[in-house]
Amino acid sequence: MMTVPIIDLSKLCIHTATTKPWNIEAAAQYYARVGVAGMSVWQDALEGRNTGKTGRMLRDCGLQVVSYVRGGFFPAAEARDRLTAIDDNRKMIDEAAELGAPLLVLVCGAVPGQTLELSRRQIEDGIAAILPHAEKADIRLGIEPLHPMYADSRSAVNTLRQANDLAEKFDSRHLGVVHDVYHLWWDPDLRAETERCGQSGNLFAFHICDWKIPTEDFLLDRGLMGEGCIDIKQIRGWVESAGFNGFNEVEIFSKKYWEMDQNTFLDMIVEAYRNHV
Amino acid sequence: MMTVPIIDLSKLCIHTATTKPWNIEAAAQYYARVGVAGMSVWQDALEGRNTGKTGRMLRDCGLQVVSYVRGGFFPAAEARDRLTAIDDNRKMIDEAAELGAPLLVLVCGAVPGQTLELSRRQIEDGIAAILPHAEKADIRLGIEPLHPMYADSRSAVNTLRQANDLAEKFDSRHLGVVHDVYHLWWDPDLRAETERCGQSGNLFAFHICDWKIPTEDFLLDRGLMGEGCIDIKQIRGWVESAGFNGFNEVEIFSKKYWEMDQNTFLDMIVEAYRNHV
Repeated sequence: MMTVPIIDLSKLCIHTATTKPWNIEAAAQYYARVGVAGMSVWQDALEGRNTGKTGRMLRDCGLQVVSYVRGGFFPAAEARDRLTAIDDNRKMIDEAAELGAPLLVLVCGAVPGQTLELSRRQIEDGIAAILPHAEKADIRLGIEPLHPMYADSRSAVNTLRQANDLAEKFDSRHLGVVHDVYHLWWDPDLRAETERCGQSGNLFAFHICDWKIPTEDFLLDRGLMGEGCIDIKQIRGWVESAGFNGFNEVEIFSKKYWEMDQNTFLDMIVEAYRNHV
Repeated sequence: MMTVPIIDLSKLCIHTATTKPWNIEAAAQYYARVGVAGMSVWQDALEGRNTGKTGRMLRDCGLQVVSYVRGGFFPAAEARDRLTAIDDNRKMIDEAAELGAPLLVLVCGAVPGQTLELSRRQIEDGIAAILPHAEKADIRLGIEPLHPMYADSRSAVNTLRQANDLAEKFDSRHLGVVHDVYHLWWDPDLRAETERCGQSGNLFAFHICDWKIPTEDFLLDRGLMGEGCIDIKQIRGWVESAGFNGFNEVEIFSKKYWEMDQNTFLDMIVEAYRNHV
């Protein structure tokens, strides 16, 4: 299967945390100037701002708001904390609606000291509790499976199969999955599970970056596309064959790149996007 | 399911790399003195020594040689390099026989820049090439799936299901799998795949340590049992229910512990073994 080469930037989205040194106003201006079409917004980027006005500012810059990041973190040892997580997620659904983001990304959570099985049940309960609110607000929820190296404290959902299983338990067009090459590239079932979530209408978002060799930090050493070992073109081909035609969202969390001049880094992202996605 | 508590050290094995600052003679003496019953031997530990004599020395100390580590690394871009890997593995099979180790552990390998699918085919070809030699020498080969965070350059086999699939492709009682909690604990299919490899007679070895939170190094920050988030008792229960009654092998690669007095560390291992395995 040949993946069709990318010829323009109309599907390029960048996550605000990728250019963390910029505030959201600077990011919007610079993304738009180089032709980036979409932005995903980290909750932190809205701090001290009016959410609705910020959404309008982004649209005025010509940017589409692709997703709001990140809800989830449902598991907790105490029932009280699980209820707090549910409240926080409902608030984030409201914020996504104000911002004009159609999708809230869920990083499901995990609690060291309790079994993954229990955390998974609490995740399912948490989703059940917030889904009616999301449906009413017409905000989609995307379960993002995280790499197994985050199973200790960030997510007990670590494969696309698990995310698909979970999404399919609920009969809702507002619940689906988020597909991120960084978390999923190693999975021998990735092609089949990608097809599956396309067929079920559950493939809501597609995130890209690369896996550096060696990777030197568990959180903040993601690579620019083409810099590592992930065959992004192949995976994009699978995602598009599964019927996805949304944005390719660049999500690079990297101390190294945050230390660079961010306009230079942005140019590198655009070039890497044209050559390696 | 209750896992039966450990009451003695007759199933405790330690891998030489766990106490890397000691040479194999010191390790043998100190392991035996505290009642450890088995040793797994890293190839490096034999450097400059007669392999057969070293094996006798270990048995004279009262230690059983449990496994020889590590063969594998079959994938390579060049055919010549793949043949070299096969030769190296045949040599390691001979060394295992000389040492008196019944099992050679295979870390399968992966090559950045080629697809995981291709690496997996090369792994299968490599195993096919060395298996007759292993059968003739009566040395068992154990496919050890590595954590997905090692899929870039160490192993394209990252789940117990993959290892089971691969082992079952060959109809040989000399090919099976190595089950390591560090690599496998996160897997939602772990219990089912553990049962499966027990039923097929392919569960050859069981490795233990813990996953620290946070883990600060991709290779050398493994935890002492009880120090992290792995439910080792639960997994040992699954392994034993699957019919395994071999050694519990402690494999802790840790800069932090290597900096300690190794006799103190050894006492900590024995205590952690009694309390958390």
